[in-house]
Amino acid sequence: MLRLPGLIDPHVHLREPGATYKEDWKSGTAAALAGGFTAVLAMPNTAPPICDEETLSLALTLAGQKAHCDYAQFVGAGADNASKLPTLANKAAGMKMYLDQTYGPLRLTDQAAWRKHFERWPVNKPLCVHAEGETLAAALKLAVEMKRPVHFCHVSRKDEILLIRAAKERGAPVTCEVAPHHLFLTEADIPTIGSGRSEVRPRLASLADQKALWDNLDAVDCFASDHAPHTLAEKDGATPPPGFPGLETALPLYLTAVNQDLLCLEELIDLCYTNPRRIFGLPEQPETWVEVDENAVWPIYGEDLHSRAGWTPFEGRLVQGRVTRVVLRGEEVFKDGQVLSQPGFGCDLRAIIQ
Amino acid sequence: MLRLPGLIDPHVHLREPGATYKEDWKSGTAAALAGGFTAVLAMPNTAPPICDEETLSLALTLAGQKAHCDYAQFVGAGADNASKLPTLANKAAGMKMYLDQTYGPLRLTDQAAWRKHFERWPVNKPLCVHAEGETLAAALKLAVEMKRPVHFCHVSRKDEILLIRAAKERGAPVTCEVAPHHLFLTEADIPTIGSGRSEVRPRLASLADQKALWDNLDAVDCFASDHAPHTLAEKDGATPPPGFPGLETALPLYLTAVNQDLLCLEELIDLCYTNPRRIFGLPEQPETWVEVDENAVWPIYGEDLHSRAGWTPFEGRLVQGRVTRVVLRGEEVFKDGQVLSQPGFGCDLRAIIQ
Repeated sequence: MLRLPGLIDPHVHLREPGATYKEDWKSGTAAALAGGFTAVLAMPNTAPPICDEETLSLALTLAGQKAHCDYAQFVGAGADNASKLPTLANKAAGMKMYLDQTYGPLRLTDQAAWRKHFERWPVNKPLCVHAEGETLAAALKLAVEMKRPVHFCHVSRKDEILLIRAAKERGAPVTCEVAPHHLFLTEADIPTIGSGRSEVRPRLASLADQKALWDNLDAVDCFASDHAPHTLAEKDGATPPPGFPGLETALPLYLTAVNQDLLCLEELIDLCYTNPRRIFGLPEQPETWVEVDENAVWPIYGEDLHSRAGWTPFEGRLVQGRVTRVVLRGEEVFKDGQVLSQPGFGCDLRAIIQ
Repeated sequence: MLRLPGLIDPHVHLREPGATYKEDWKSGTAAALAGGFTAVLAMPNTAPPICDEETLSLALTLAGQKAHCDYAQFVGAGADNASKLPTLANKAAGMKMYLDQTYGPLRLTDQAAWRKHFERWPVNKPLCVHAEGETLAAALKLAVEMKRPVHFCHVSRKDEILLIRAAKERGAPVTCEVAPHHLFLTEADIPTIGSGRSEVRPRLASLADQKALWDNLDAVDCFASDHAPHTLAEKDGATPPPGFPGLETALPLYLTAVNQDLLCLEELIDLCYTNPRRIFGLPEQPETWVEVDENAVWPIYGEDLHSRAGWTPFEGRLVQGRVTRVVLRGEEVFKDGQVLSQPGFGCDLRAIIQ
């Protein structure tokens, strides 16, 4: 039996408010515990998006009633909220800026707006960006120029990770995360996953991109599932939305990679606990740990997941390592496939006095 | 339009004599031309196996009547032919030794028999071994001890390529090849390919093994398809035989990797032409080249293949680069999907006076 700290997933979409048929704070945080994550940071591209005091309060009320694990909620940068958002900085997981097209309404295309948000958001509070390719290069340049710490979400391509590595080597105040689907899938998997189901942003990339992420793992700060559930009806429909459920498959995939010596256990703990805790300024969760049967070899099946998505792009994949028990703040909250904590047991990590 | 030399595949199974419902010299060499290979070296585990003068003569007669491209035929090491095989060395592509279990009857488990073959087979003639893991380590040790050049077929695992790299760095007279399915598929693809269809020896390996092959490509001498066709009825049946068809998908996969900067075109030519020509002592094919549309992006479909197998483990995969025309000894032998040479046009490369 392997004992890990309660892991932190700094990038999840829990779909509430607005699309609880895809996921809600209950099902999403149940999936988190089943996956070995005792804390999740929720993205703001919900309906409505979380981009002011009223919507943040709505999301936190829902989370407070329903979450099985601990959490914090991001606020989203919009075209006209740069001056108001900083008043929410203490209550939010951080600010998220969507600089490239993805799911939801929050895209910022105007670089003047980027600059305004970079300036106004407190320099000591987390600022995350979704930026790909040239957009990432431009955002990185702005971060360096403004000496503004920025966290780059779900880096997926060779050119991107090499840019970030080079910036870090010159001392730029940037951090980044990669997602399991970019570490364990490539565009070559699209025909077998299916074209609609394999839609995700950033897209599944090439074998060379995947290899570059592994080759530059020392330039990566966090693993983040980018858990983005949609129903199979949507994924197989005429306009498949981008995103994969990921909370329950991430750790087994990482542990399988540890077993293959692609990374070591210490690196895994840095990537899933130590670094996200530091980068997002999260409090310790006392008496909290995850028990793993590191020898269990098992196939991933979508129908076994707690997520309301009910499917996975890793269908049928054999992994080694299974979460058997999770203890959160002294309570047994998951055991042998069952979530045991009540909805509302989870705490808002930004409401905890450190 | 990209122009390549006529490529050499040093490891194919053409199934004739004995199993022409899987493949024969016509269909297998048609697949070779369609894949950009103007020369193939055929393995001896046919029915009967090619392991004496009579069976070699049978195979060469069939090939002479049916082959669309140039060829040579390996002879197989058996328990009692070590003293007789050397008389066939000038007529054979080389000698093949099966030291681990695979398809066919030629496995040699007795290390005294290995030693006898290593001693008797002419030191300047190609000697290929199928050996995995500890068997590879043992064969490598014997090759070093006896200063006997040995070519290791279809190296698939990290431990294996690292052993071979270390031996080469110490000056051991060894060479090796890797197969496209170990470069472009892993065990994670087994659920989507299907368990029977994904049977192959060496087996599909881990992501870490795949990464190690790419990381140590400078220790690899040749790419070899290990084209090993079986019918879908067999692959989907109760006792699926190991092996994939590969001649028609190899070059498009390699070109896709070049496009991704996983290797450069010069390396590809070394791996598919210069090195196999040197290692197997093959004559130049004058006025011979392959024309490739390097921009064509297309999906691989089993039903489009010339191989009698009629399926592929790469079903649906998008690749970039398509063979448009092949010229062999001044004759247009393949154009726009059609094989134009007659059966019997292919020459026995060991019958050519150099």
